[in-house]
Amino acid sequence: MTIEKLSTNTVFGGEHIRFKHRSSTLACDMIFAVFLPSKAKTTPVPVLYWLSGLTCTDENFMQKAGAQQYAEKHGIAIVAPDTSPRGEDIANDPSYDLGQGAGFYVNATQPPWQAHYQMYSYVTEELPQLVEQHLPVSNKKAISGHSMGGHGALTIALKNKDMFTSISAFSPIVNPINCPWGQKAFTHYLGAHCGIWEAHDTCELMRACDNTLPCLIDQGLDDEFLKEQLLTERLTDIVKEKQLDVTIRMQPGYDHSYYFIASFIEEHVAFHAKYLAQ
Amino acid sequence: MTIEKLSTNTVFGGEHIRFKHRSSTLACDMIFAVFLPSKAKTTPVPVLYWLSGLTCTDENFMQKAGAQQYAEKHGIAIVAPDTSPRGEDIANDPSYDLGQGAGFYVNATQPPWQAHYQMYSYVTEELPQLVEQHLPVSNKKAISGHSMGGHGALTIALKNKDMFTSISAFSPIVNPINCPWGQKAFTHYLGAHCGIWEAHDTCELMRACDNTLPCLIDQGLDDEFLKEQLLTERLTDIVKEKQLDVTIRMQPGYDHSYYFIASFIEEHVAFHAKYLAQ
Repeated sequence: MTIEKLSTNTVFGGEHIRFKHRSSTLACDMIFAVFLPSKAKTTPVPVLYWLSGLTCTDENFMQKAGAQQYAEKHGIAIVAPDTSPRGEDIANDPSYDLGQGAGFYVNATQPPWQAHYQMYSYVTEELPQLVEQHLPVSNKKAISGHSMGGHGALTIALKNKDMFTSISAFSPIVNPINCPWGQKAFTHYLGAHCGIWEAHDTCELMRACDNTLPCLIDQGLDDEFLKEQLLTERLTDIVKEKQLDVTIRMQPGYDHSYYFIASFIEEHVAFHAKYLAQ
Repeated sequence: MTIEKLSTNTVFGGEHIRFKHRSSTLACDMIFAVFLPSKAKTTPVPVLYWLSGLTCTDENFMQKAGAQQYAEKHGIAIVAPDTSPRGEDIANDPSYDLGQGAGFYVNATQPPWQAHYQMYSYVTEELPQLVEQHLPVSNKKAISGHSMGGHGALTIALKNKDMFTSISAFSPIVNPINCPWGQKAFTHYLGAHCGIWEAHDTCELMRACDNTLPCLIDQGLDDEFLKEQLLTERLTDIVKEKQLDVTIRMQPGYDHSYYFIASFIEEHVAFHAKYLAQ
């Protein structure tokens, strides 16, 4: 597996690098972004994986969240993949919530999606292998994300507890099997049988487990998608009922934008730093 | 003068607001962005004006610089105007460095530009009047900007020393009369007689003055435009020769991007806060 360096920028004393590689999992070229703190010049650093939301690429989080200053402070790398396979010859849909930019971090089983839309395997297998092979990082990993990427971070970590030290999410889609975004994507990618969907639903995964990884979730109370798509209250009820180690903070005034993420990313990076250091 | 609120986002405990208004100076509708710190709810706050670079709108700085956290900390508002008049019926050019998105903060005297391209008057008169009329701000003002906006901040403040407490700039075009970007824009906007251009050239203004406002300039040494367009060394020589109170910091490794701005904006906001509080 080879990777090609597309560009680098110095930021907060560390390095932001965009890489391109041929993904065997997704059967297309993919771009991902990395922030390497200056500490990585002398010692392997742990990695925070960031999964972005609908319509995003590797760039949104790196440009808008301001996370690099905290990753530099704690000596943590950040890896931000794209949100789906990309390319002219790859299945797509004109709507923003299906197809390219909307991979939902599952392995599609249905045509025309299954040939390329294998984001679950890409994020859990190919990407970390590539990162650990080519970059000065340790095998310690945490995971976070926003909206569709919050769903991705939560479901991927809950299904791979040995792989990550900690989970966090901003404005995650916690119950996709019961919201329009999730139902649309899962019908297309996984088929109409909703029993299969539960394996990619944070509420269902939390309901079925007795303990989670340390988990921090921030949700804006003025989020325009809260009531119809994100359904945070349903997770709050499950966490309470099962007394799980999950902190869910409802933040007054904040919406679904990167302004919200920027406002609290310092605390999320510090949260993960604590567990990555153990 | 009325303004229309287009959108608001809570960010770092303060408020990011986009306003639209009819500009009499530019003879078109204009959008500008404001960050109001929470302190503005109880007392008028000073304002840092931010002038963006080529191709930017009001959005780039607000989304990518992460300045709001420091403005919130110091109790300072930020106002970010667009970089030119905008509209289908307004003179334009297919190139990125002329016309819409490239107003260069001068008042055009030449056709077809002079009907709308009056950014100098917009930034020094109409915009601050509008802001002070409609928003909970004091009349204390500082100014900063990036690249073409760094040129704008420096030249506008040097020509209006009573208006501002302090100036700063990232990667400014300090000698536009001697670089391709400046020569192209000034020829179109101000005419071919370069004697007139000197009134909008930081090097010429600094050469002609005995004292400046407190001034901080950051310039990346890996900036791809440093040698051909920005010409920072020429300003360094003048500042040294005239012993002016201007700090120019050459920052190893940094380029022309917002990653550079984000890395040092904390220090710029703190720099202005010191003078705005006096």
